[in-house]
Amino acid sequence: MKVAGLRCISCGSVYDPAELDYTCPRCGPRRGTLEVLYDYDKIKRAFTWEALKRSQNYSMWRYLPILPVEDERYIQPLKVGWTPLYRFDHLAREYGVKELYIKDDGVNPTASYKDRASAIVVIKAQEKGKKVVACASTGNAASSLAGFAANTGLTTIIFVPKSAPEAKLAQLLIYGAKVLAVEGSYDQAYDLCLEAAERYGWYNRSAAINPYLVEGKKTGALEVAEQLDWEVPDLVLVPVGDGSVISGVYKGFHDLLELGFIEAVPRIIGVQAEGAAPIKRAFERYTGAEVAIEDQEAKTLADSIAVGKPRDIVKAVKYIHAARGFFISVSDREILEAIGELAKRTGVFAEPAAAAAYAGFRLLAEQGRLSKSDRVVAMITGSGLKDIAAARRVVGRPYPIGPSMKDVERVLKELEGK
Amino acid sequence: MKVAGLRCISCGSVYDPAELDYTCPRCGPRRGTLEVLYDYDKIKRAFTWEALKRSQNYSMWRYLPILPVEDERYIQPLKVGWTPLYRFDHLAREYGVKELYIKDDGVNPTASYKDRASAIVVIKAQEKGKKVVACASTGNAASSLAGFAANTGLTTIIFVPKSAPEAKLAQLLIYGAKVLAVEGSYDQAYDLCLEAAERYGWYNRSAAINPYLVEGKKTGALEVAEQLDWEVPDLVLVPVGDGSVISGVYKGFHDLLELGFIEAVPRIIGVQAEGAAPIKRAFERYTGAEVAIEDQEAKTLADSIAVGKPRDIVKAVKYIHAARGFFISVSDREILEAIGELAKRTGVFAEPAAAAAYAGFRLLAEQGRLSKSDRVVAMITGSGLKDIAAARRVVGRPYPIGPSMKDVERVLKELEGK
Repeated sequence: MKVAGLRCISCGSVYDPAELDYTCPRCGPRRGTLEVLYDYDKIKRAFTWEALKRSQNYSMWRYLPILPVEDERYIQPLKVGWTPLYRFDHLAREYGVKELYIKDDGVNPTASYKDRASAIVVIKAQEKGKKVVACASTGNAASSLAGFAANTGLTTIIFVPKSAPEAKLAQLLIYGAKVLAVEGSYDQAYDLCLEAAERYGWYNRSAAINPYLVEGKKTGALEVAEQLDWEVPDLVLVPVGDGSVISGVYKGFHDLLELGFIEAVPRIIGVQAEGAAPIKRAFERYTGAEVAIEDQEAKTLADSIAVGKPRDIVKAVKYIHAARGFFISVSDREILEAIGELAKRTGVFAEPAAAAAYAGFRLLAEQGRLSKSDRVVAMITGSGLKDIAAARRVVGRPYPIGPSMKDVERVLKELEGK
Repeated sequence: MKVAGLRCISCGSVYDPAELDYTCPRCGPRRGTLEVLYDYDKIKRAFTWEALKRSQNYSMWRYLPILPVEDERYIQPLKVGWTPLYRFDHLAREYGVKELYIKDDGVNPTASYKDRASAIVVIKAQEKGKKVVACASTGNAASSLAGFAANTGLTTIIFVPKSAPEAKLAQLLIYGAKVLAVEGSYDQAYDLCLEAAERYGWYNRSAAINPYLVEGKKTGALEVAEQLDWEVPDLVLVPVGDGSVISGVYKGFHDLLELGFIEAVPRIIGVQAEGAAPIKRAFERYTGAEVAIEDQEAKTLADSIAVGKPRDIVKAVKYIHAARGFFISVSDREILEAIGELAKRTGVFAEPAAAAAYAGFRLLAEQGRLSKSDRVVAMITGSGLKDIAAARRVVGRPYPIGPSMKDVERVLKELEGK
């Protein structure tokens, strides 16, 4: 077995992975999320810079030696990970940093960062002999799960809030998932899925509860480090809803540090929406003792991070503390502006939650919290095509014209006047 | 200069690329489309299998020695090409062929095959000192052009038919393009853009007229050949609207044959929508003499191939004739079914035009036109997220439930009954 143990993030108890699927029985489903432990000394022997350099596998599976996969036959063909890390010098200059990088995870198979976790979960479900995988999701995790399960014998059952964007719903349905649209919030859908999965023995892919998700999500950090030739950036900005992606990003850098691949974990900065920032609040009150959890009602157009009852809050707070990072929050208006600027200036079209990372970068610059020597990475966690309605709120309209040159002339004059 | 000349596809006249931007003055804009000529013997010396094997550039730029780029400084950072070629054995077995491959070009930066051409055009525009690039498009070519121009100083002016899907319009606008929505068909938008570009000196990226588009589009074929380790498939299925993508696919294999990389060009099969199949008709009447052009009104939900007046018809007919290929047509119903089956069975979510390639594969199998020894590639030219409305026509609806286990039970019973 590759996984050496599962350790509770709160009480530190270590469990045998063959005996426990989800969370620490002592600490319960929210405080008792588990960390996946490895025998780093053993892994180190074969898994080296040089081995990676020789690897022809340009996907997240290039990191297989530090992923919790026991049976490689279940790896799906869909190419997930090794997404582009773009360097944009014009924006770095404009915002007064040394380097700005955009990690575009919108080009994953189902167009979001969540593919990294679903790729793992579909394997674990089959290793465990499960027939049904279930998930509560604001949209991306679910469509990703449905996409990765498509080529397997697994049945996918999804719980989404009724308000999920059309594109995400359509994606779910087209991949053949059974979709239950819950009259309620994401948080309610989550609790319902939890109860149903337990009652019917489904394998649960909902955020945080499943310890292997963070392992998939760490691959984004592994890639950033390798793509920067193991010179880690100073700051990494990550959009935060449940807190799982940011926990994954930390875990990736942590693993690399343990393996001697890098010399330090970068400062990781969580970006929440102003209307859904419970992890930011908990982080700011954190003293090193117990994480204080205070839920709220989530209010933001960035549906992927519209989470009022974050499930990975304990890991997110502890990990970002360990990474000498912090949390900030951005308004919906700032998110919308970020979508527009990012697309217009780089060609990368992000969904609202993803654009929050770039909005956070702009905010830090505005507040004078960035230095000229900073190398900054913003994690763009989903494609703008996932939520066209949001994008339409920032763009103008097309100019309607008849099929005549006269009409073209009229519009050109209008444009000149602007 | 890398480009040795531009040759008219109809009369064979060869022009100096410094002297002509678009089409043969003798044969006019539709019959006079140009082929880009190279000095293959010169290229062969440095561009070899071995050189490619050493290349760490996993994008279309790995083929730079046979691309018409003179000034590499204008290459944009967006990673285009080297898209996954998936092999699906379960479907190959089911349809009675040896191997089935799906080339997923939906994961390009703006989510379509057209990025391959736009990446080139943005370079050529800057090499020629142009300030404005213009394009008439059913959607993908335009949003792709806007995305690739985003990071440059170029202004983008786009002509689309008013009926273009919302996602494509939003993409155009978010990238900062000026969009003229023409009350009329794509074919009318095309003619208007042609006239305006000529009058105002804009660089025109509209299909076929610009000889460098096909060069970008050929890279999909180069990748297929390399990804199959230079053992070309028997059949390659390509969706056909204007005829430029399929001409590009042929040109790619043709170049590889000239360079001695492959031993034969595969049979290339053009798939048109039943309601917009003028190239199929022209091909079936083709005797080796002049290509007979008969336009029609386009009627199909596959907007990317809803072309009644195809601009690259001469190349498409001549090239597919040379490739011992043929054309077929599929109904809108077959296209919708193909979207669903492809997504459910592989996890690849295609837009209608892209799914037409897979619909064509199913049709050939049904008609007994495939053999057990066939290795087949279907080119999936755009992401399903581009046209959610179409996908929604084939999927069921979510099950609405209240946030209670009772409702979950009710739905599960309903599902069992199915």
